[in-house]
Amino acid sequence: MKTVPGGITAPLGFRANGIHCGIRKNKSKRDLSLIVSDRRAAAAALYTTNLVKGAPLLVTRTHLSDGHAQAVLCNSGNANTCNADGLDIAERMCGLAADALGIPADDVLVASTGVIGQPLDIAPIAAGMPALVAGLGPHSDVAAEGIMTTDTVKKEIAVSFPLAGHTCTIGGIAKGSGMIHPNMATMLVFLTTDAAISSAMLHKALATDVQSSFHMVSVDGDTSTNDMVTILANGMAGNPEITEENADFAAFMQALNTVTIYLCRAIAGDGEGATKRLECRVCGADDLTVARTVAKSVICSSLTKAAMFGADANWGRVLCAIGYSGAPVDIGRVAVAFRSPAGQIEVCRNGAGIPFSEEVAKKILLEKEIEILVSLGDGPAEATAFGCDLTYDYVKINGDYRT
Amino acid sequence: MKTVPGGITAPLGFRANGIHCGIRKNKSKRDLSLIVSDRRAAAAALYTTNLVKGAPLLVTRTHLSDGHAQAVLCNSGNANTCNADGLDIAERMCGLAADALGIPADDVLVASTGVIGQPLDIAPIAAGMPALVAGLGPHSDVAAEGIMTTDTVKKEIAVSFPLAGHTCTIGGIAKGSGMIHPNMATMLVFLTTDAAISSAMLHKALATDVQSSFHMVSVDGDTSTNDMVTILANGMAGNPEITEENADFAAFMQALNTVTIYLCRAIAGDGEGATKRLECRVCGADDLTVARTVAKSVICSSLTKAAMFGADANWGRVLCAIGYSGAPVDIGRVAVAFRSPAGQIEVCRNGAGIPFSEEVAKKILLEKEIEILVSLGDGPAEATAFGCDLTYDYVKINGDYRT
Repeated sequence: MKTVPGGITAPLGFRANGIHCGIRKNKSKRDLSLIVSDRRAAAAALYTTNLVKGAPLLVTRTHLSDGHAQAVLCNSGNANTCNADGLDIAERMCGLAADALGIPADDVLVASTGVIGQPLDIAPIAAGMPALVAGLGPHSDVAAEGIMTTDTVKKEIAVSFPLAGHTCTIGGIAKGSGMIHPNMATMLVFLTTDAAISSAMLHKALATDVQSSFHMVSVDGDTSTNDMVTILANGMAGNPEITEENADFAAFMQALNTVTIYLCRAIAGDGEGATKRLECRVCGADDLTVARTVAKSVICSSLTKAAMFGADANWGRVLCAIGYSGAPVDIGRVAVAFRSPAGQIEVCRNGAGIPFSEEVAKKILLEKEIEILVSLGDGPAEATAFGCDLTYDYVKINGDYRT
Repeated sequence: MKTVPGGITAPLGFRANGIHCGIRKNKSKRDLSLIVSDRRAAAAALYTTNLVKGAPLLVTRTHLSDGHAQAVLCNSGNANTCNADGLDIAERMCGLAADALGIPADDVLVASTGVIGQPLDIAPIAAGMPALVAGLGPHSDVAAEGIMTTDTVKKEIAVSFPLAGHTCTIGGIAKGSGMIHPNMATMLVFLTTDAAISSAMLHKALATDVQSSFHMVSVDGDTSTNDMVTILANGMAGNPEITEENADFAAFMQALNTVTIYLCRAIAGDGEGATKRLECRVCGADDLTVARTVAKSVICSSLTKAAMFGADANWGRVLCAIGYSGAPVDIGRVAVAFRSPAGQIEVCRNGAGIPFSEEVAKKILLEKEIEILVSLGDGPAEATAFGCDLTYDYVKINGDYRT
């Protein structure tokens, strides 16, 4: 397996584009992206568990009922959620893309991200569609830009890997930043692959993968109304179609996880206002649920996040977050260490503090990528959660998001 | 029922004091408080649900196994939690107070608040005990000061009410600020009363009360290791002892709730870095659990808290927090309004936005006390949760708490 350039257009038969059509006031920001497969593809998606679901999610779910799709249309600047005409607008978005591409409307998936509860005007989308379609090409980068909101960097990746003698590729772009706390689905992530895989196995791969990837990311504990991850698999790599859990499926899963974990890290590191990326690695848990619950509790703790912002080795807050996670843990066996490119330092053993150099700890925590290492005992399970520090800028960004 | 001065020393037979003994470096900050009843009293307490429990809580629980106590000793500046010698230190603290007061050590309850995982030196406590006891008197205010950490104001109240022809009084002091998210117990709250009530009924009153009071407060979503609420009832008001759920018990419960809700508001309004006190009032819920779950979800949402800091009527974040609360809610029936001393404005009806004046909304949200009013439908249940906004200063305070 190797990383290759090209993002979502690296796999064979995918084109993409992103333009500024006028949903956002700032003309330098792209606000409409389109991803198209040359062939109708197997497709799968997962959605937010929030009871408030954006209209685009509902339309996408309907269009995906046959397990296939050929294009994904996404706008930024407006979530098209909690609007009386939301479903109609989302359907019309699909219709506009379908007409321009010459495909059925129900083969178009749709997503929106931005402010909730403000009507989305279809006019700029209709006006921009010809240019959006005309410019389709190997342009993963501009498509990645078109889905950004408060993201500061675009997020894309692709990896190639052999599958039964064929070279397959999986690409992905993502939008993260604030309101990132997926529970069953995720922020906006669009994945493409030229591997041949049945719709059912594609869904299985995605649903399994997110348990260790997007479900383990938290920026602020808020589960968005519009989170969604989609994947299109057009089969153009020519490999024998994966229809069961065989070695090819395992290889596909491994490549998929490489892509999704990369995007998780990119989203966590670009959390709103973040100055540091945090990872909490839990080992020695009795089972996977305990490992994941503890890792997420630590990564979500406001007090721990603020301590990391201040490069303060306040391990008591880590222990505190483990204690209120709800997972059955023997606190008397817990060990905690901090690790970064500057080194590693153990600060707590058997549930109690141990002497350590504050100076060394400070140096480790002043780095931009911090790992909080938690050992719960001698159980077999481990898990990693991805997050970021809590900063002045998070408050600033979210104190006047709409203005 | 009326509010009276005197806090925890307003009820008959209670004295208190607070001194600087040297646990904290800043000599202008009191760090050791003592509350004493002239008589051995019925007593009850509730504790944090965090698996990591401060040593003082464990000692208090043991001393309360007979349902009685006569004194409460509390230090600030150090939580005495996650220390190998924690239990020994907590027991010795009780012993020191007991010796100075001439009462059994197991009639002393003990609490600590401050940084976790740093050994607590008994020496300054031992040295300060004579002065602490010598100064006992009607000094609720200095006792309230002695339990403060990052609190900016002391929190105390007392109310008097008639009980079978006798005037009874309940007083309380509290320490809140950061790490306030009680699940089964609470931040540090010490209550006193001269009402005569059995130990069993006192426990029942406290356990019932916290469901609508301290359990409904959140500053940052972190459940502390040291949260505790205690109540001593010495019976000196002379009323017939309450031993069952009669009219006297109901009157006692009402007075208790007046005291605890006042302290909840004081704690929420003094949350770390807070510039505004928030209350989320939910009505029309099918049952109490739904009402409470929704109210807490809204009050805990970082995005909603940041929007309130910015006086931004971003009601979509309120709806979003309702949607991910986990409570079964028909989003299509939800209405949201904001209220403050400057007025009231409806912003969402039937789960969708309605036109409103941003100017008026801004004026309402620029006030210091904001109510977020949520109507879920036509069910009978309602609940209120107490919190505060998320500000730059919260991050600042918690980025370098130990330094």
